[in-house]
Amino acid sequence: MESNEDKLLGSRFIFEGHDTVELAKKYGTPLYVMSYDAIKRSVDKLKASFEKSGLEYSINYAGKAFLNTAMCRIADILGLDLDVVSGGELYTALAAGFDPSRITLHGSNKSQQEITEAIEAGVGTITIDSLYEIDLLNDIAASMGKVVQVHLRLSPGVEAHTHEYVQTGRVDSKFGIPISMGSRAARMAIEKPNLDLKGLHCHIGSQIFNTKPYFIALTGMIEMVYNIKEMGAEIREINLGGGFAINYLADENDFDIDSLFPSVADFLRENAQSLGIKVPKVIVEPGRFIVGKSGITLYTVGTIKEIPYIRKYVSVDGGMADNPRPALYNAVHSAVVANKYDYEPTDLVTISGKCCETDTLIKDILLPPTEPGDILAVMDTGAYNYSMASHYNRLLSPSVVLLSGERDDLIVKRDTYATIIANDVIPEWMGNKQ
Amino acid sequence: MESNEDKLLGSRFIFEGHDTVELAKKYGTPLYVMSYDAIKRSVDKLKASFEKSGLEYSINYAGKAFLNTAMCRIADILGLDLDVVSGGELYTALAAGFDPSRITLHGSNKSQQEITEAIEAGVGTITIDSLYEIDLLNDIAASMGKVVQVHLRLSPGVEAHTHEYVQTGRVDSKFGIPISMGSRAARMAIEKPNLDLKGLHCHIGSQIFNTKPYFIALTGMIEMVYNIKEMGAEIREINLGGGFAINYLADENDFDIDSLFPSVADFLRENAQSLGIKVPKVIVEPGRFIVGKSGITLYTVGTIKEIPYIRKYVSVDGGMADNPRPALYNAVHSAVVANKYDYEPTDLVTISGKCCETDTLIKDILLPPTEPGDILAVMDTGAYNYSMASHYNRLLSPSVVLLSGERDDLIVKRDTYATIIANDVIPEWMGNKQ
Repeated sequence: MESNEDKLLGSRFIFEGHDTVELAKKYGTPLYVMSYDAIKRSVDKLKASFEKSGLEYSINYAGKAFLNTAMCRIADILGLDLDVVSGGELYTALAAGFDPSRITLHGSNKSQQEITEAIEAGVGTITIDSLYEIDLLNDIAASMGKVVQVHLRLSPGVEAHTHEYVQTGRVDSKFGIPISMGSRAARMAIEKPNLDLKGLHCHIGSQIFNTKPYFIALTGMIEMVYNIKEMGAEIREINLGGGFAINYLADENDFDIDSLFPSVADFLRENAQSLGIKVPKVIVEPGRFIVGKSGITLYTVGTIKEIPYIRKYVSVDGGMADNPRPALYNAVHSAVVANKYDYEPTDLVTISGKCCETDTLIKDILLPPTEPGDILAVMDTGAYNYSMASHYNRLLSPSVVLLSGERDDLIVKRDTYATIIANDVIPEWMGNKQ
Repeated sequence: MESNEDKLLGSRFIFEGHDTVELAKKYGTPLYVMSYDAIKRSVDKLKASFEKSGLEYSINYAGKAFLNTAMCRIADILGLDLDVVSGGELYTALAAGFDPSRITLHGSNKSQQEITEAIEAGVGTITIDSLYEIDLLNDIAASMGKVVQVHLRLSPGVEAHTHEYVQTGRVDSKFGIPISMGSRAARMAIEKPNLDLKGLHCHIGSQIFNTKPYFIALTGMIEMVYNIKEMGAEIREINLGGGFAINYLADENDFDIDSLFPSVADFLRENAQSLGIKVPKVIVEPGRFIVGKSGITLYTVGTIKEIPYIRKYVSVDGGMADNPRPALYNAVHSAVVANKYDYEPTDLVTISGKCCETDTLIKDILLPPTEPGDILAVMDTGAYNYSMASHYNRLLSPSVVLLSGERDDLIVKRDTYATIIANDVIPEWMGNKQ
């Protein structure tokens, strides 16, 4: 016969071999939990598809999804290259000892300072996002006596069906150079003595569930490789961006990554032959695909409020400050009660955060009956949660723990109250009452 | 005849007596600029209406709109009380030497730690948000041997017409106790030996443009004061919340604050007499009304990208990381080119941020023709910009400068790269390459 203790253990939610209730006890809540093993599995899927394809490739992890010094080390250990989009991300990578030659600097509005820092650090690639940046980058490189390897980001006019905010490959976009202007941009770049145009880049959006848009984009890209060959230059790399969807709910499919790169290889070999060009190296820059499902967030349940016949609000000790995605994108997440994992979900509730705002984390979810002190695990929060977190309501940013095998290690410390006021200054004229 | 320098000076945008181009030069961009004088004017408007009303009153500044130690000092200097909604906000107020007896602790899901810290600090009021909190608060107060002065937050079922996220007074809300349960909640609170029920609270939403919803809410509240009198207790304070709208665009009206409190006074005196109760003290807790129009954000223009016949994107060196309101609420802001203030606005453009995401700050605005290096001033960013800022893309949080008369003082320092990685830890097993 089971003891009570056994029963309790039996009903706990185990994430990647770890008892999430124990993690909540050990590290406190709210807590981001990331799994190295899950990250590795996602990367292995990408690699397997690439290996099957026979293509020369590299996988650039898109740091904006989740970046800190430990994540840079993980990318390095797993053989990933790294995309950064700001001076802050670059600084983080360098602080973690990441090889700068494997870093790409992205961004639709890089500052002169960021470009200078990237060239100084010796980043491998800078992705040019506009005609304006061709001049800007060449001027800065010239003043530093450097030649910079660059990609041109083109917007191929593909409108992948996804949330408006993350449609980035369409023509009406702040990102990239419209593909109709691609030849002009390429000629400008080729003529610049301090730029080495080695690649083309496109990124058609986020959470794309089928492979077809990638081939629409590739069709434009490979024609551009041909056009550039006719200008006397050789494009050695094509960056296809990211956007491979993950399933946030059980009834969605993951993106079919297995078939993508072999099909891309077929496409490129066929077209390369007919256009008389070399098959370029293929680069992708997934973020969410690598970390999205590798992370969960643990919260403690507090106030439970039943508005009779209307709604039952279950409040947790985090909210839009640590996960702004539901408020920003109407994003959906599933969740489980970690200490009642095998209890029957009989209660229709809405999960609210603690911010002074209607910060609904999950609208209408079936859970076992909850009570204050329960641990709620919100699934698939590995991407764009930690990285988009704010201090709204002066809440303390959660810590991040990394699971790997049987280990659990803190990789981001929780804020303290002292951190919150660290930048605050009281001008003398006001008098400081303290 | 004007010199060129004069012309340049003549065309600069002067905010509260200060040349914004000079501010951008001195402090760098992006830069939040707040005006003490403008804050004082907003507070004076509230005070004038209250003074006309003859009511006993207090104005509690809602810290969530914009809070740091300097703002706590400003609230103190202007005779405001203070609303805090978290341990972090309470800590900030105490660090600034704010009198705890003039602090109210709010929040729909206060933690035990926050409640304990508030009682230890001696805050003047704790606003109870749920039946659950009546027990919780009494238990904690009892264990500390304290009696706590409390308000009950009721949700009066008013649906003020505003964005769904900021409708907080309707029945289907995570905030407050449904007014139909008010008598039960009051009886529970009155019976608790460690609670002193001194007030009732409601908050019907944000950006409310007319006064009527306040009177609908008041009608329910004053009936509850009567019900509670019949239970043998006296409600001495009614907190009407905030929500007084400001105009973000020229064709909107400001909320008619002048007439509000005199009308509230008439309402209360009439009803108090007929119900045989004393006219209670009236408390309001405006945030946006006080700081929203008292702040602007200065950016430097970078990449300008024209998609022919479609759109012209003007990118600035900040974005959704420092102003998430457009992405969250489709919020609108006006803007001017600070160094071309009197140039004719002939160019229809879209202002984008620098985040790796379609972070549109302003869609379709007429500006003078812009070029890289121009300073853009986005108006009315005093509320919910700094306080909701994130480190998305590991961008550095802007600094905040406070103007007062001819002074300009730094009140929040800009992040440094070192701040960005301050909480990062690399576990030993990964090896640190540095």
